[in-house]
Amino acid sequence: MGSQDVKLKGVDYEYIEQDVFNKSSLLLELNPVHKKVPVLVHGNKAISESFVILEYIDETWKQHPLLPQDPYQRAHARFWANFAEQKLLYAAFIAMVASRDDTEKALNVARESVEKIEQEIKGKKFFGGDNIGYLDIALGWISYWIPIYEEVGSMQILDPLRFPAINTWMNNFLNHPVIKDRLPQRDDMVVYFRGRKKIVSPAYHGLMKYL
Amino acid sequence: MGSQDVKLKGVDYEYIEQDVFNKSSLLLELNPVHKKVPVLVHGNKAISESFVILEYIDETWKQHPLLPQDPYQRAHARFWANFAEQKLLYAAFIAMVASRDDTEKALNVARESVEKIEQEIKGKKFFGGDNIGYLDIALGWISYWIPIYEEVGSMQILDPLRFPAINTWMNNFLNHPVIKDRLPQRDDMVVYFRGRKKIVSPAYHGLMKYL
Repeated sequence: MGSQDVKLKGVDYEYIEQDVFNKSSLLLELNPVHKKVPVLVHGNKAISESFVILEYIDETWKQHPLLPQDPYQRAHARFWANFAEQKLLYAAFIAMVASRDDTEKALNVARESVEKIEQEIKGKKFFGGDNIGYLDIALGWISYWIPIYEEVGSMQILDPLRFPAINTWMNNFLNHPVIKDRLPQRDDMVVYFRGRKKIVSPAYHGLMKYL
Repeated sequence: MGSQDVKLKGVDYEYIEQDVFNKSSLLLELNPVHKKVPVLVHGNKAISESFVILEYIDETWKQHPLLPQDPYQRAHARFWANFAEQKLLYAAFIAMVASRDDTEKALNVARESVEKIEQEIKGKKFFGGDNIGYLDIALGWISYWIPIYEEVGSMQILDPLRFPAINTWMNNFLNHPVIKDRLPQRDDMVVYFRGRKKIVSPAYHGLMKYL
């Protein structure tokens, strides 16, 4: 069985790669508002924004649910997905691009955010339990992007001694058969984020004092 | 029938006001992560974050659904709720607090965002159709906050000549029986946002050039 046969929902799809430096007219047409990947095309419908796409997939193909069934557990998963994007992603990005004084403050915010997520994953293989669920996918970027941010920013956020459960989860996630052969090229991402850092750094000078 | 009997779901609840300048120990205990309102308490469960609360309410009390039933329409509603919060709220806030050069750029981003939402509401009484739905509630802040931002920032975003459908919707929304007697005190909000402007303005100087 090839890795292309391993799927969470068992639904056939075609994957079309986008060059984010030279966006195709197809992307601009399918996501005219944000002009960003990912976009899911289903029949004649185009759905954008990662978390919105995940909900759509779970509501359309009901086999092997990604979200838990209980409303409170569902709220819990959505809460942490949003928390990580709003707090950790933002703080880690600022830590990567900001000047030295701000880096310290942003790093602390980032690490405090990871600390909270550490408490959520402790004692579990995946956030979804024994298999990958909504929250694993929604937080998947942590396992792949943060180490790249760490390299580009010459910093450490995911200290394995301080966050052993997160580090175990990262390994479980990155080595899961649905994930491991479908990650973007690491080298390309390092180049991309080095470019972002250069462009946006001046804007972030002194910002952390106020936010 | 008093206004307290008019409800979208017909579910009894108790409303507890919070002083955001002097947060209660109850709030800090119920939402230790963000320390923010709103928090919904249902039995021994506490749910935070507005959009997460809306989904929880709709999944727990299924009568009079707030979200449409069709997965694509649901995705559509979630997409625009997030768009407004990420783009319009952010740009309007920067326009309110930023220095003059940035204000122009932020105002343009804000107005372009409103333009997109104008296209979505055109010809409809509410985003949800004949009655208030998920997207009306998720965008409700536009009808009430933006005019306050406009006052605090001495600027105009919601030009009624350019955005007639949004302005009609704002009136429909603000005069809906579930909404009109439950809005926060306008004067308190003006004071609050004048305070925010004073504190955060320095951080936003020159920011729009890069974002």
